[in-house]
Amino acid sequence: MKKIDLRSDTVTRPSNEMRQIMATADVGDDVYGEDPSINELEERAAELLNKEAALFLPSGTMANQVALLTHTVPGQEVVLGDESHIFYYEVGGLARLGSLQARTVSDENGYLEPAAVEHAIRGENIHYPETGLICMENTHNRRGGISYGTDRVEPIAELAKSKGIPLHLDGARLFNAAYQEDVDPGDLVAGFDSVMFCLSKGLGAPVGSMLAGSEEFIKSARKNRKLLGGGMRQAGIIAAAGLYALENRNVLKADHEQAEELAEIIEGFKTDKLEVFRQSTNFVMLACNNQGGAELISQKLNDAGILTNQFSDRLIRLVTHQDLTEGDLQVFAERMEEIIAGL
Amino acid sequence: MKKIDLRSDTVTRPSNEMRQIMATADVGDDVYGEDPSINELEERAAELLNKEAALFLPSGTMANQVALLTHTVPGQEVVLGDESHIFYYEVGGLARLGSLQARTVSDENGYLEPAAVEHAIRGENIHYPETGLICMENTHNRRGGISYGTDRVEPIAELAKSKGIPLHLDGARLFNAAYQEDVDPGDLVAGFDSVMFCLSKGLGAPVGSMLAGSEEFIKSARKNRKLLGGGMRQAGIIAAAGLYALENRNVLKADHEQAEELAEIIEGFKTDKLEVFRQSTNFVMLACNNQGGAELISQKLNDAGILTNQFSDRLIRLVTHQDLTEGDLQVFAERMEEIIAGL
Amino acid sequence: MKKIDLRSDTVTRPSNEMRQIMATADVGDDVYGEDPSINELEERAAELLNKEAALFLPSGTMANQVALLTHTVPGQEVVLGDESHIFYYEVGGLARLGSLQARTVSDENGYLEPAAVEHAIRGENIHYPETGLICMENTHNRRGGISYGTDRVEPIAELAKSKGIPLHLDGARLFNAAYQEDVDPGDLVAGFDSVMFCLSKGLGAPVGSMLAGSEEFIKSARKNRKLLGGGMRQAGIIAAAGLYALENRNVLKADHEQAEELAEIIEGFKTDKLEVFRQSTNFVMLACNNQGGAELISQKLNDAGILTNQFSDRLIRLVTHQDLTEGDLQVFAERMEEIIAGL
Amino acid sequence: MKKIDLRSDTVTRPSNEMRQIMATADVGDDVYGEDPSINELEERAAELLNKEAALFLPSGTMANQVALLTHTVPGQEVVLGDESHIFYYEVGGLARLGSLQARTVSDENGYLEPAAVEHAIRGENIHYPETGLICMENTHNRRGGISYGTDRVEPIAELAKSKGIPLHLDGARLFNAAYQEDVDPGDLVAGFDSVMFCLSKGLGAPVGSMLAGSEEFIKSARKNRKLLGGGMRQAGIIAAAGLYALENRNVLKADHEQAEELAEIIEGFKTDKLEVFRQSTNFVMLACNNQGGAELISQKLNDAGILTNQFSDRLIRLVTHQDLTEGDLQVFAERMEEIIAGL
Repeated sequence: MKKIDLRSDTVTRPSNEMRQIMATADVGDDVYGEDPSINELEERAAELLNKEAALFLPSGTMANQVALLTHTVPGQEVVLGDESHIFYYEVGGLARLGSLQARTVSDENGYLEPAAVEHAIRGENIHYPETGLICMENTHNRRGGISYGTDRVEPIAELAKSKGIPLHLDGARLFNAAYQEDVDPGDLVAGFDSVMFCLSKGLGAPVGSMLAGSEEFIKSARKNRKLLGGGMRQAGIIAAAGLYALENRNVLKADHEQAEELAEIIEGFKTDKLEVFRQSTNFVMLACNNQGGAELISQKLNDAGILTNQFSDRLIRLVTHQDLTEGDLQVFAERMEEIIAGL
Repeated sequence: MKKIDLRSDTVTRPSNEMRQIMATADVGDDVYGEDPSINELEERAAELLNKEAALFLPSGTMANQVALLTHTVPGQEVVLGDESHIFYYEVGGLARLGSLQARTVSDENGYLEPAAVEHAIRGENIHYPETGLICMENTHNRRGGISYGTDRVEPIAELAKSKGIPLHLDGARLFNAAYQEDVDPGDLVAGFDSVMFCLSKGLGAPVGSMLAGSEEFIKSARKNRKLLGGGMRQAGIIAAAGLYALENRNVLKADHEQAEELAEIIEGFKTDKLEVFRQSTNFVMLACNNQGGAELISQKLNDAGILTNQFSDRLIRLVTHQDLTEGDLQVFAERMEEIIAGL
Repeated sequence: MKKIDLRSDTVTRPSNEMRQIMATADVGDDVYGEDPSINELEERAAELLNKEAALFLPSGTMANQVALLTHTVPGQEVVLGDESHIFYYEVGGLARLGSLQARTVSDENGYLEPAAVEHAIRGENIHYPETGLICMENTHNRRGGISYGTDRVEPIAELAKSKGIPLHLDGARLFNAAYQEDVDPGDLVAGFDSVMFCLSKGLGAPVGSMLAGSEEFIKSARKNRKLLGGGMRQAGIIAAAGLYALENRNVLKADHEQAEELAEIIEGFKTDKLEVFRQSTNFVMLACNNQGGAELISQKLNDAGILTNQFSDRLIRLVTHQDLTEGDLQVFAERMEEIIAGL
Repeated sequence: MKKIDLRSDTVTRPSNEMRQIMATADVGDDVYGEDPSINELEERAAELLNKEAALFLPSGTMANQVALLTHTVPGQEVVLGDESHIFYYEVGGLARLGSLQARTVSDENGYLEPAAVEHAIRGENIHYPETGLICMENTHNRRGGISYGTDRVEPIAELAKSKGIPLHLDGARLFNAAYQEDVDPGDLVAGFDSVMFCLSKGLGAPVGSMLAGSEEFIKSARKNRKLLGGGMRQAGIIAAAGLYALENRNVLKADHEQAEELAEIIEGFKTDKLEVFRQSTNFVMLACNNQGGAELISQKLNDAGILTNQFSDRLIRLVTHQDLTEGDLQVFAERMEEIIAGL
């Protein structure tokens, strides 16, 4: 039985064209700054985001952690969403690597509320850690791939600026957000001091993420990347794939259309036990309204060859991406029908 | 003008009797374990709390931090209240010293809700930090000195035990809680793997806090105390005061009565702008229902010689203690009347 | 003018054959454990070193840091050479990431002396950190590429075992050592609890290092790799190159022969100002016996198109590798002659 | 049998006069900065050392650790002696609390050699941690209480200044050094950015150490003291003893004379197995020139009621202090004679 993999857009594999580009990439030793493919990718990423400089890293987690290490000093507090990737999915690196105290505020709607952030910022007191950084996430993974526009960013950016606190964006799926919000990526990130995005999710590159910011920030980040062991040698091989992915980022449009279609299929089977909780960008969140329902449904989907990601007792995440092939959604619909019938 | 100091019960000064005890205390070098006064205090504290062993430390903050260091390994997550002292008032030591990620849950009512704690405990996943400790606070400082009994502890203790996670109590004002809840202190802390309490707050000793737990835990804690620089020499001088304070802990009763009286006085002046938000144990929380009202009122109280502690835009904390003298509350009432009249 | 790059064997670029292998590599999402090329490489590396399991990482620095994090708990002491790579060249990660105290002993001869290591191991004392790990390096970078055999390892391994302290090998150039010492790599590392080696140095792969050890160790290391941001997706592209490099590791023989030849050329020009300080494996250390001589000579070499690595006021490192082409050493000899003449 | 305690000058107990001063000390809540006795002690200490400000802490270890935290940022390197107290006896706090990499240089002669320090200071390189602090120790504990004068400090101080690196003094026994070197304490510490000294060793106070430096440094140090849990309440009780000890620091003279006398007694029994290795300030280092001799001799001394501190296989430390009473040295000589006879 052919598997339909909806676990994540991280499962995308390099296309033949991308493989050919890797096979012929011009490379050098990047620790010496001599890899032309990496240098080109870093320049292009900075340009796209309208930042002074950018840095290539082996993962989004490392890019976020390097940003934390570069912006802060240990013992400071970082204001971020209580289900943000940095807090939720990065093995506690915030505390383990950065010795930073997480000051979480609710990001239930996919973004931070300015009043909540303001309340969380520390004043001067011998008992208090200092607030060292504010982090946002767009699109927001645990909140169902929700995107937001510059109107959600600006009040936080102004607050951060007025307090002298840097602002970082975990934009693992930044181009999904930009497409959804119909805004230039550079404009969407204008209020941030640093921005991370991934080449290896919907964009389809095999490995790698970018971190962008000021020249000075990136210079320090480069050293912190070395500290974490992210200084690679002839990584131009994979950077070339990343550059190709970046220039072909319009593939994401089709992912969003497929996610909409997927949501419609599910809505067609809607019961009181099973419904679409949320659809945004290339994510569909399925709600299973029974005690422990998500575990049962994800198991049944899995048995039917449909791989998904169980998020909680109640929610299952389905993600569309460029490796889905024609007919996959039709197959999904058929298998889903059988599962629903058998509940 | 005589000052009336209601900022905290930490302002209490040693009585003449306590000073005499310090002056004649038998001492030795505690780093060698040879201070008889400290040894006696440690034994007495362990006995009172029905734990195997106890340790004398220079502050409650150090006792809490030593507990964190002793129970956990860096990179773990600690579940604790979002306005708990450990999270709010310990300079980010949780992250700075322990490299621990704060997993805060609401403690709005002064205690943790079992369901919220359960939700916060991590499962097995390569992206997750491990849950290493759960902390409670009784009485709860930022929540207005609220106390709770064993019924609030037991469900959390059972949950912790079932998950194999240790449970620590920040009992800075533990004896206030025990008196309020009318329960033996040893019974109140039976569900905890470690307990901290302060000798230097309402009990009136000049310096020091105790940490109690199993023999093995205290042995490790002793080394972590050394690491933080809490290994003192002839500290039996102050330990002797602590032991006296501990044996005379019934002074706390009067503090609670005074706090009730204080709340009644304020209630007598109740307006829509000013009222008692909460009274519990030896705390009175005053609510100032104007924008920025707490700053104004605490300033006016201060000008009238009444020292208090502004907690937020809206709340002012008043704390009673054994250094208040007869007539102080009468003076308070008179000055309060003038302030109210002048609003 | 054609450059001759003797700075490091890290400058080697993937061959056409290696590029073809990358272009056709079978890949998957390695965070899910589904990349066949990575899985094959990990199995092969474990087998070669006679360890239970192995892990692919983006750099040798990360592999060493992951080993430190996996073997130790923060606050412990690590015994290692005072010019070892882990201490000297890893941005202080030992302390910054691992919160470990470096207990350096002289490795002037390229290896640790058992008596010095034994002296450095801590006993039981409330003032002491615990000794958590011993690290060796083979071949030794800062000591001129010196290799050593099992006779140098065994006494340290026995000591470590008798004290219950794990032993890690920074074997960035392990196969150079094995070839030089004419010993099976698995036998050479038999005494170590964990071993790191690099695919991207003399072996010629573009990116990547391996960490090998017990099943349990590698399971924990995998999580620590995620923590540091080394969890990559379809990294099979580069792992395939690594596997090819590993199977063709006999290329290192030619590097050693070239280094011998290079040393002979230099010896032919020997003066009191310039001589071979040491030649071992694929390294030649040039001694410049004038005040600041190394800076001058490395500058003159650079002007003549010969790239080298200045190690100190007196020493210059030259490294041979598979990207040197026929005739390079002849050109080196000619240019060297001119430089010597002009001194 | 009356014990003669030569383990350390930390064993000194408060005199009756000192106890009386504690019993009548004026105190307040020092977290609010309202303890008059502490304030007076801090001012007096700053004045004596000719620094802008000073801070009272519960131990020398905490004072050193606070200095480290205040001068550095995590990941930096600290240059210090390889048997300095900070490296050797502070439970690895340098790494555990400060995440600092120890860059040890030999302090075999009791002080740092300028050339060795200069060699240890890092240049600019993406692989290197930054050098953040240099530490000296005077008198030097593990090196037998050796003192040194400003001539040993100045070259290091100039080097540090020229590199922009702060310089800290662990002056646990600073006044012993000043007396021995016959120099004003303020002059002796003029080259240091921060200075720690202990009130609880030879000076005889029960508890406490001072940290002195610039106003700005001490302000930050105060917050770091709070972080480590060194913020105490009515600690004026012990600060008053400290102030008395400081004003009566000339008691140290007699300790030095007694140490000389002690050394002479031992020299009288000199054999090839037992001799004075070193005598300086209030320390006598006894060398036991047999395999494991120090353990045997310290055991025999202990059985004879003479408590000492075994430093290594070969060395035993004896320390004189004000709690030795007339006749103690005569008793020591008699018991020593018996031990020697029995060897």
